[in-house]
Amino acid sequence: MKRYEKFADEIAELIRTGVLAPGQKVPSVRHASRTYGVSASTVFQAYYLLESRGLIMARARSGYFVCQHVQRPLPEPEISPRQADATEVDVSELVFSVLSSIKDPDTVPFGSAFPSPQLFPLPRLARSMAHAVRDMDPQSVVADMTPGNHGLRRQIALRYMVGGLLLPVEELVISNGALEALNLCLQVVTRPGDLVAIEAPAFYATLQVLERLKLKAVEIPVHPREGIDLEVLADSLERLPIKACWFMSNFQNPMGASMDDEKKRALAELLARHQVPMIEDDVYAELYFGQQAPKPVKAYDQEGLVMHCSSFSKSLAPGYRVGWVAGGRYAEQIERLKLMTSLSASIPAQAAIADYLQHGGYDRHLRKLRYALETQQNAMLAAVARYFPEQTRVSRPSGGYFLWLELPEAVDSLRLFQLALAQGISLAPGPIFSATRRFAHCARLNYGHPWSARQEKAMETLGRITQSLAG
Amino acid sequence: MKRYEKFADEIAELIRTGVLAPGQKVPSVRHASRTYGVSASTVFQAYYLLESRGLIMARARSGYFVCQHVQRPLPEPEISPRQADATEVDVSELVFSVLSSIKDPDTVPFGSAFPSPQLFPLPRLARSMAHAVRDMDPQSVVADMTPGNHGLRRQIALRYMVGGLLLPVEELVISNGALEALNLCLQVVTRPGDLVAIEAPAFYATLQVLERLKLKAVEIPVHPREGIDLEVLADSLERLPIKACWFMSNFQNPMGASMDDEKKRALAELLARHQVPMIEDDVYAELYFGQQAPKPVKAYDQEGLVMHCSSFSKSLAPGYRVGWVAGGRYAEQIERLKLMTSLSASIPAQAAIADYLQHGGYDRHLRKLRYALETQQNAMLAAVARYFPEQTRVSRPSGGYFLWLELPEAVDSLRLFQLALAQGISLAPGPIFSATRRFAHCARLNYGHPWSARQEKAMETLGRITQSLAG
Repeated sequence: MKRYEKFADEIAELIRTGVLAPGQKVPSVRHASRTYGVSASTVFQAYYLLESRGLIMARARSGYFVCQHVQRPLPEPEISPRQADATEVDVSELVFSVLSSIKDPDTVPFGSAFPSPQLFPLPRLARSMAHAVRDMDPQSVVADMTPGNHGLRRQIALRYMVGGLLLPVEELVISNGALEALNLCLQVVTRPGDLVAIEAPAFYATLQVLERLKLKAVEIPVHPREGIDLEVLADSLERLPIKACWFMSNFQNPMGASMDDEKKRALAELLARHQVPMIEDDVYAELYFGQQAPKPVKAYDQEGLVMHCSSFSKSLAPGYRVGWVAGGRYAEQIERLKLMTSLSASIPAQAAIADYLQHGGYDRHLRKLRYALETQQNAMLAAVARYFPEQTRVSRPSGGYFLWLELPEAVDSLRLFQLALAQGISLAPGPIFSATRRFAHCARLNYGHPWSARQEKAMETLGRITQSLAG
Repeated sequence: MKRYEKFADEIAELIRTGVLAPGQKVPSVRHASRTYGVSASTVFQAYYLLESRGLIMARARSGYFVCQHVQRPLPEPEISPRQADATEVDVSELVFSVLSSIKDPDTVPFGSAFPSPQLFPLPRLARSMAHAVRDMDPQSVVADMTPGNHGLRRQIALRYMVGGLLLPVEELVISNGALEALNLCLQVVTRPGDLVAIEAPAFYATLQVLERLKLKAVEIPVHPREGIDLEVLADSLERLPIKACWFMSNFQNPMGASMDDEKKRALAELLARHQVPMIEDDVYAELYFGQQAPKPVKAYDQEGLVMHCSSFSKSLAPGYRVGWVAGGRYAEQIERLKLMTSLSASIPAQAAIADYLQHGGYDRHLRKLRYALETQQNAMLAAVARYFPEQTRVSRPSGGYFLWLELPEAVDSLRLFQLALAQGISLAPGPIFSATRRFAHCARLNYGHPWSARQEKAMETLGRITQSLAG
């Protein structure tokens, strides 16, 4: 253990035991350095680490403060029990009725799938867009069609490279957001009636896509911190003719779980053993709160089985609809399918993002964005602890912008959803995340919006309704 | 017959008989008015009509000239014979191999599916884009998702209204270009194995989509001027369980055929009688050479059976990937499918086009574009007449940017394609337009690029190769 890690642990202990109370100022770097006989840089590194763990936060020009944190640490949600082998999916109607009811912009958007647009550098992007279209070679409207703008694909490949993954530009196909990429991948490797392994709980769009393509779901339980249960997956791959896996390895939606590197490696080996392709939905990868970007499963894939899908919608450019897939051995088939279904992603949007990535300061923006999300997570966790029934369990993801709440058994989250909506508050009820309509007492809350008195008030209301339903 | 129509016919006769030779100046309006004893406005209207028929063209500040026209009028292609009832489609590989071989930007692009980007107001659009993104409400990145930007949908509905078709904004869903809209429509009304009536020859993407979705094609012959054979369609609808029709009513790709209003009305009635939905691919509607925009079949549809798909890709903003569908009774299902497959079209691109439609001078641009295309058509027709074997037949569409050539029987257009490509010239060989790989001696040529010595030379080369293959 390094010196600064040891020092960070000591401070963390002070916070845990209440010596340093929530809201209290942490000793200044100079003060701490003198008092504890460590170098200023050690203090700095320790504070940075504590910040990344969500224990302290910096305020501009005032130093570090202990986060307004969970007073009592809430337990994690439980791993869902294993279900029947394969299920027909029929959840689309429920999802649409929930989604359409939360469209009202005056609703407190805890049920939203998107973070606040305010968190993104839209004015700077607008400059990149203006610049890109002004200088656009007219031929690019043909030349930049699928597989996509070469400069953009190069920038994406560079980011993979920095993350330790060497990828030829040719493997990358630009799509209309990640959702199209995921749809394309699934269609390349499955036929109607096939079995697909997905997470339980799963992102509801996954369920809708399976339903639409008449695929059957094999639900693999997700541990709230560690991700899918590999043993269940191994057993399912052994016993069932699974044609594809569709997993989120980092900050899984809705649970927030992330696999560690060892597990990712093991998963890649499992896929290789069974020669089963995996669609890796990794749209939240850039939203990590730790020191380092998490790796994708694709980083451990030796055989080109993993199709890694992501986009700029959650990290930089919501609404631009620019995503991509690194398609491994399926890259050419994906490109052809893309050509047949929508020809190409919007070329000005691609050019604008390519320009921004080169000149806009993406990493600086990302640091700010991560910090904002982490702060908002702390605020929401504290509010859950303050206002929700004692039996509530909650995830504490190390990235992304969703909390997963397991409420007291008696709480029907669809009922909670209706009652909350009547009060102008949305949430995403548990059953929309399951092919088998489980998670009836669970809900996903979005903390992707700047915290405010209104949000605090909404959490109080939500907590009160939950209490009343818990009986 | 109106006075100006009669006068126009008289001038047309002078051109036909060679009294007025190609390139020769037509009498000035003042001169003609005095000489023939008609009013100046009658002459004006007559000349406008002749221009729209491609017989004369205006040169800025110099008056009207007889077009550099076909010396000998080439006959039209023949209507294709009727085929077996329903066909499995398996043409995708051939299409991809043809398309990928014509990507080289140094090739003379007679095989291209796109008109020259030079014909579009890209700098003016860039200003609209810069303006739109600068002023964009951050909330719009969520609010403008499917069904799409409200201002844009309103502008599209206004254009329908001007064309005589009253359409609620709610019926419109914005898509990633027309191709996505067509895909969505087809998936809403069919299941794998279903029969779909299409044209013969048909746009190759239609064939690819059918193949991908495992649909069977019922090929309906297309007359080079009048469009599909309604009798064959009526008979097919009677005898076969056809689940959908997919037709281009205006400037059909590749034949260039357009149905007249009476035929469109009859088609709509036929659909109503059988309660069969129709997907109307109308992407070339704005590229008419006549006086008036052609109506869609949808204008005659009383029952919401017609899904009218179009885009701005061929008329204004190539590469922006903004299309739409007016989905009739299927609008909501289309919207949901769009949400599940790619969420939304690019929001800056939608906003830019909405801004342009309001402020950019779309109709002025369209007039210039139509004029350029008509002039280029004349040039290419003249070159076909000059360089191709005497037995060649050619379409003379009244809009769009494709000619359909029926070459001497002995000519294998795939062979022609290979030989031409070796000379740096592309073309679209006939077999890629047929589920049954017919049209072996046909080819589609693109005249959507400004005419130049290079193009003239390429036509000469093509003609020579064709001669050699004709034996």
